Amino acid sequence: MARFLKDRSGASGLAPGSLVFIGKQKMEQPVLQVIEYNTKGLSEKEIASPKEIEAEVYRPGVTWLNIYGLHDIKLIEELGEVFSIPVMLLEDVLNTDQRPKYESFDSFDAFILKMIRYDESAQKIIAEQVTLILGQHFVITIQERKGDVFAPVRDRIRNSKGRIRGKDNDYLAYALMDAMVDNYSIAVETIGKKIDDLEHRIFQSKDAGLTEEIYKLKTELNYLRKSVRPVKEVITSYLKSESPFFHEKNKVFLRDLNDLVTQSSEAIELYNNLVSDQLNIYNTNMSNSLNQVMKVLTIFASIFIPLTFLAGIYGMNFEYIPELSYRYSYPIFWVTVIATGIALLIYFKRKKWL
Amino acid sequence: MARFLKDRSGASGLAPGSLVFIGKQKMEQPVLQVIEYNTKGLSEKEIASPKEIEAEVYRPGVTWLNIYGLHDIKLIEELGEVFSIPVMLLEDVLNTDQRPKYESFDSFDAFILKMIRYDESAQKIIAEQVTLILGQHFVITIQERKGDVFAPVRDRIRNSKGRIRGKDNDYLAYALMDAMVDNYSIAVETIGKKIDDLEHRIFQSKDAGLTEEIYKLKTELNYLRKSVRPVKEVITSYLKSESPFFHEKNKVFLRDLNDLVTQSSEAIELYNNLVSDQLNIYNTNMSNSLNQVMKVLTIFASIFIPLTFLAGIYGMNFEYIPELSYRYSYPIFWVTVIATGIALLIYFKRKKWL
Amino acid sequence: MARFLKDRSGASGLAPGSLVFIGKQKMEQPVLQVIEYNTKGLSEKEIASPKEIEAEVYRPGVTWLNIYGLHDIKLIEELGEVFSIPVMLLEDVLNTDQRPKYESFDSFDAFILKMIRYDESAQKIIAEQVTLILGQHFVITIQERKGDVFAPVRDRIRNSKGRIRGKDNDYLAYALMDAMVDNYSIAVETIGKKIDDLEHRIFQSKDAGLTEEIYKLKTELNYLRKSVRPVKEVITSYLKSESPFFHEKNKVFLRDLNDLVTQSSEAIELYNNLVSDQLNIYNTNMSNSLNQVMKVLTIFASIFIPLTFLAGIYGMNFEYIPELSYRYSYPIFWVTVIATGIALLIYFKRKKWL
Amino acid sequence: MARFLKDRSGASGLAPGSLVFIGKQKMEQPVLQVIEYNTKGLSEKEIASPKEIEAEVYRPGVTWLNIYGLHDIKLIEELGEVFSIPVMLLEDVLNTDQRPKYESFDSFDAFILKMIRYDESAQKIIAEQVTLILGQHFVITIQERKGDVFAPVRDRIRNSKGRIRGKDNDYLAYALMDAMVDNYSIAVETIGKKIDDLEHRIFQSKDAGLTEEIYKLKTELNYLRKSVRPVKEVITSYLKSESPFFHEKNKVFLRDLNDLVTQSSEAIELYNNLVSDQLNIYNTNMSNSLNQVMKVLTIFASIFIPLTFLAGIYGMNFEYIPELSYRYSYPIFWVTVIATGIALLIYFKRKKWL
Amino acid sequence: MARFLKDRSGASGLAPGSLVFIGKQKMEQPVLQVIEYNTKGLSEKEIASPKEIEAEVYRPGVTWLNIYGLHDIKLIEELGEVFSIPVMLLEDVLNTDQRPKYESFDSFDAFILKMIRYDESAQKIIAEQVTLILGQHFVITIQERKGDVFAPVRDRIRNSKGRIRGKDNDYLAYALMDAMVDNYSIAVETIGKKIDDLEHRIFQSKDAGLTEEIYKLKTELNYLRKSVRPVKEVITSYLKSESPFFHEKNKVFLRDLNDLVTQSSEAIELYNNLVSDQLNIYNTNMSNSLNQVMKVLTIFASIFIPLTFLAGIYGMNFEYIPELSYRYSYPIFWVTVIATGIALLIYFKRKKWL
Repeated sequence: MARFLKDRSGASGLAPGSLVFIGKQKMEQPVLQVIEYNTKGLSEKEIASPKEIEAEVYRPGVTWLNIYGLHDIKLIEELGEVFSIPVMLLEDVLNTDQRPKYESFDSFDAFILKMIRYDESAQKIIAEQVTLILGQHFVITIQERKGDVFAPVRDRIRNSKGRIRGKDNDYLAYALMDAMVDNYSIAVETIGKKIDDLEHRIFQSKDAGLTEEIYKLKTELNYLRKSVRPVKEVITSYLKSESPFFHEKNKVFLRDLNDLVTQSSEAIELYNNLVSDQLNIYNTNMSNSLNQVMKVLTIFASIFIPLTFLAGIYGMNFEYIPELSYRYSYPIFWVTVIATGIALLIYFKRKKWL
Repeated sequence: MARFLKDRSGASGLAPGSLVFIGKQKMEQPVLQVIEYNTKGLSEKEIASPKEIEAEVYRPGVTWLNIYGLHDIKLIEELGEVFSIPVMLLEDVLNTDQRPKYESFDSFDAFILKMIRYDESAQKIIAEQVTLILGQHFVITIQERKGDVFAPVRDRIRNSKGRIRGKDNDYLAYALMDAMVDNYSIAVETIGKKIDDLEHRIFQSKDAGLTEEIYKLKTELNYLRKSVRPVKEVITSYLKSESPFFHEKNKVFLRDLNDLVTQSSEAIELYNNLVSDQLNIYNTNMSNSLNQVMKVLTIFASIFIPLTFLAGIYGMNFEYIPELSYRYSYPIFWVTVIATGIALLIYFKRKKWL
Repeated sequence: MARFLKDRSGASGLAPGSLVFIGKQKMEQPVLQVIEYNTKGLSEKEIASPKEIEAEVYRPGVTWLNIYGLHDIKLIEELGEVFSIPVMLLEDVLNTDQRPKYESFDSFDAFILKMIRYDESAQKIIAEQVTLILGQHFVITIQERKGDVFAPVRDRIRNSKGRIRGKDNDYLAYALMDAMVDNYSIAVETIGKKIDDLEHRIFQSKDAGLTEEIYKLKTELNYLRKSVRPVKEVITSYLKSESPFFHEKNKVFLRDLNDLVTQSSEAIELYNNLVSDQLNIYNTNMSNSLNQVMKVLTIFASIFIPLTFLAGIYGMNFEYIPELSYRYSYPIFWVTVIATGIALLIYFKRKKWL
Repeated sequence: MARFLKDRSGASGLAPGSLVFIGKQKMEQPVLQVIEYNTKGLSEKEIASPKEIEAEVYRPGVTWLNIYGLHDIKLIEELGEVFSIPVMLLEDVLNTDQRPKYESFDSFDAFILKMIRYDESAQKIIAEQVTLILGQHFVITIQERKGDVFAPVRDRIRNSKGRIRGKDNDYLAYALMDAMVDNYSIAVETIGKKIDDLEHRIFQSKDAGLTEEIYKLKTELNYLRKSVRPVKEVITSYLKSESPFFHEKNKVFLRDLNDLVTQSSEAIELYNNLVSDQLNIYNTNMSNSLNQVMKVLTIFASIFIPLTFLAGIYGMNFEYIPELSYRYSYPIFWVTVIATGIALLIYFKRKKWL
Repeated sequence: MARFLKDRSGASGLAPGSLVFIGKQKMEQPVLQVIEYNTKGLSEKEIASPKEIEAEVYRPGVTWLNIYGLHDIKLIEELGEVFSIPVMLLEDVLNTDQRPKYESFDSFDAFILKMIRYDESAQKIIAEQVTLILGQHFVITIQERKGDVFAPVRDRIRNSKGRIRGKDNDYLAYALMDAMVDNYSIAVETIGKKIDDLEHRIFQSKDAGLTEEIYKLKTELNYLRKSVRPVKEVITSYLKSESPFFHEKNKVFLRDLNDLVTQSSEAIELYNNLVSDQLNIYNTNMSNSLNQVMKVLTIFASIFIPLTFLAGIYGMNFEYIPELSYRYSYPIFWVTVIATGIALLIYFKRKKWL
């Protein structure tokens, strides 16, 4: 269950604001990528410490610092110094089980968000924390490990495709969030397809493994909801904020983002309902099936048990059973047997069991 | 499940604002119909490009441009140029899985809405996206493919029936929305009739196919809710907006529209409850039926199994069974059998199993 | 299901605002009753057209025009002219499936409400639409057909009983609404009594018809909720409005009305819960009963099937079965049988099946 | 079900504001107790009509008039005259099925509240209506019948215990409400204890009576909720009101009262959940038990039915059955029987049925 | 059930504001610890009565008075005098079943909170009440008994670790609350791990004890929700308050706290859903299992019961059964038996029961 609330016991008892990395270390060496661009040009480099770009970040043009790897606390501390990030926020960055949230500070807006993907091999939704910081001229993104969710944005910057090079850093922040949120829909849809598969199996076979899959889907949907719903809150509250770092005229993009998250969020609820319905229907189908099984048993048993008794009677060894020596006993016995059988069949037919 | 959240993976990774058609191409060639009218006259024509009416749309009188077919991206781009529609909105127009919404722009109000009908052959609710743009003197409607939902409005304009010719384009926009929303009620009612049919079958026969139909109805109701609920939000928020394109005095029509959507929306919830109730009742009926079946089996088995045992005893071949040679053994056996049978019947009668 | 959303397909496609009667014609000839009164006197008459009282309605004193019968569209149009009722409202009046609502106009307030009663013969809740219009000096009520729900109010006016003659027309409007709402409680209570009846039957017998009654009650409660809940909204929103037609000092009556509807509304929810509980309990009782049945079967079968096998063995005709010729075989057989039987009985006793 | 919505049919059709007693007459003769006190002294008396204290109630010091018995309408009318209580409120006082509410008037605040207790003999929650009127210097309480819920408050006044004698009448009103609300907790807790009792029985025995008790508890909790929830609304809305009769500085007591009702209210919801859980668990336990029963039956039947068939074969009287005369047939038969039995036992063991 | 609503009957009838200890006495002798500190130094002592520090608490620097043990009413009264705590609040302090709440007074803010831990031996969530009072320069904490939840905070003060020594008493109050809320997550997670354990057992074995554990988890989650949800309300409302005792600039810590409680609260809801899902799945699994059992029984019985009847026929002792003396009767009998058996097996195969 660690996915639903991570074990903070390692951090419990520490002073709030103590920098501790809560999570699983996911890569060996942190990586710091810097992309600087404006309409005219673009430069990319990898740096070893945030201090290397201290001078540049406050110059016009967009500077995007993308960091992979969280476990190096010293690095995070340097980041805090360079960008004057309060220690409370750094703590949140390091605690990878943070609830998605938005907080505004004097010199930047900070977002704790979740990246979501469906891991086919583990058959699980994986959520990783991404911190996004939007300042005057810079955007910082901090991820748990190297991933490719921002790759399309990077390509668009490099190829000067789309509007991105002609826009400010608030548009970059939006583009990055959009890339994350796009992946929500994809993850939700993967679940959707699995639900679709189940749909047919529920009516065709009655394999017991179905319940395990249904339970799994419910758990994944719960996990998705836990990650997506607060992201919606984040975007809604950012829309209402009057942040100086996001241009009013670009708010239309945020609204679009909001629609996208809402849609994912509604789809999660919908799928949750569908899976519950499926479980109910499956249950009903099984009752139906039990009814069929029991009718077969009852018909067989109700017809043959009395007849067996009848045969048993004339198998008795009493010396004085007059019927035994009667010439037509045997044919009469058969007539009785067949008549009883037919009568019972008619009875069951009337009861609509046949 | 593609109906619940369309696969955006084709578009994922693209710059937001890139124009890509997300959906199934539903007709070969886009069609652009123009109707211009005022109280005095009316002209109709088909055009090849929005540019042909560039000059006309800002003249007094109502110009209604109705477009069928979305897959021609060049056409949509031209539309954007002529009416200065931002690319973000054009993107939404092309993504046929857009959540219904209302957005206000400088020179027009835009609505993404859903057209709903029940497809009898597929036994499914079909929702298609309609974009409606309401400007100073014009209304643009963009549909996925040719349909007849706007036909009655067109007829009313042509025949100068009703108030429509004497009113401005905001009234036309309302009339078009009203035509769409009217179809919601019809779709909901089709589901309602199917629920009504089920109602009788649940108590009469016990066919296993019922659960499949119930599941289907639940899925359709979920789909309807997903489409109708945001339309209600759209109309409510438009009512509260102070759009310059919709006359205050015509807001009474919007309120009427709101009532209509609310009613459809409430009916969907109600039907959802009813179908859930039906599933519960059906389940209970099946338990009832199982109880009946098992009582029959138990009565037959409980009476004849002991008696068969009794007959079996006297069928044994032990040399020394004194009863075998006793003269009245056989009649006494029958008396015992009949007495036991009657005793058990009384017992089951007392238990109210008979 | 037509009760939940009426078939508007007859009206679909028509211009909004076209006057069409949607509903079942419930009487042959519309009736128009006029009662005029003030503290000093009272006059009653029946008129043929609203025009006959055109002059009177704006004079001081209260004029109450009560109309039965909706299908005569000409009459409704005349009404519209005389009282300058907008065509949108007239359309609502004629559409008997209108959701209850309140709308304020320049010269009057209009209410679409529902009259509710339990029809014993059909065992159904019947809701009929009533329109109430409250102007400067007049009240108009329009009902689908002749009913007696307003009779007590009429009697009070005639007999000058209560406060009604000394009060203005807003009090009359309240008194009429109160008469309607009073009937809600009575209808809800009729359902309540049926639920009470079920309560006993659920624990006593196990008749299968119960599920059908439970389903029926659920459906009726759904229907009631659909009718009553929006009436509560109407009264709440009217309370908050600052209508010039309802004296501030009489708002205490509206609040009282609000309490009454709230109470009916809460009772509906409560009864809904109770019926759901009853269905659950009934289900549990049936599982209980199935358990009992199966225990009886299992006990009978488990005791006698092994014994029958034992008897079967010594009924075999093998030539060399040494026990057959042993002198005490038969008594030993009986001892074995009885011992086995007792052992199994003890076993089942221990399992608490007996 | 009369407990959930009382039959108002007696009053239906009457003018609103007509004084009719709706409820069961619960005592023969109304009783009017007057307690007057201030920090210095205290006087108690019983009076026959409210008129006797007409002069005193507007003098400084606290006058508490406590009335038992509601059926004497003349008394209520006199009360109305003396304290200028509007007839609408008097009507509410007499209708003992009134929803708890608070209404403010010019010269006093009026509260319709519920007194709740668990009647052990009837095993039911009993709610009785109490009206509390808080004026400038007086408090009036009107109860359906003599009870002892206010006794502790009376004792505190008499013994000058606590703060009560040094405080104004608003504190008295609070103390009386507090006495009532204290009883809510006690009633809720009585239900809580019954739920606790059930908890053990659900896992130990499987007595069918359990479902009846569960249903009863659910019904009582529904009844409690119906009575307590609106009292919470009353206190919340009184807290927000700016009544001149309740000193701002004493509002802290109201907040405390609010906490207490909230706690009762939350406990009711919680218990409701627990009882639902219990029913579900009980159901599951019964399915478990049915599974056990059926496994026993299946094991017995599946082992012995085939063996009985085998014995039956060699009990046949065909003339030519070679095995019959074979010397080792009988031992071979036994070996077969035992082997088959063991094989089936292993099979069931593998299936984890044993 | 006493955990859900404590028995107040001891206090019922007393004047509100009478100091009575409601709860179980949990330690023998109350303990009063005082820690005074500022950036420069720190002093610790144990005192016997609050009066000993009367002079010190209003001096600059932070004074933290931590009290264990509630049953000594005299002590609580002295506390009230020294810090001018109103008697209503003292009453709340003593009533250990108080709903968590925040109240602001002239000279301090008071918080009633809950400390939560999972008691492994009792397998129960234990909640104990903590009162926290935040004044100008002091913080008072009052616990039911000695615990170690505040130990880490005390250590940080002593070791001058973290920011705590350089901050005011509002930060201390936050740090103490944070220590409590941290324990919520730990308790919730303990439940989470138990749910995780159940997850595997539901699909593997079918032990009946599972339902008892599920019920237990549901009860604990209900209890947790009851304790945690109001704490969230407390923090939210304190955030919105404009208390002079909590520096605006430290509100960021409160927001962090709020996130933490929200997360615990959401996890509780999530776990509740998961446990409900588990119960449903377990139920379905049992139906599945019953289906399997019944199929085995039906197959065995349906094949062998008719065959036994056949054998029974030729075991009859009628004198004239022609087949008996027919030479190939026995082989034909076997062929019939085997053919019937195979036919039935094919039948069951087709029905997918095999």
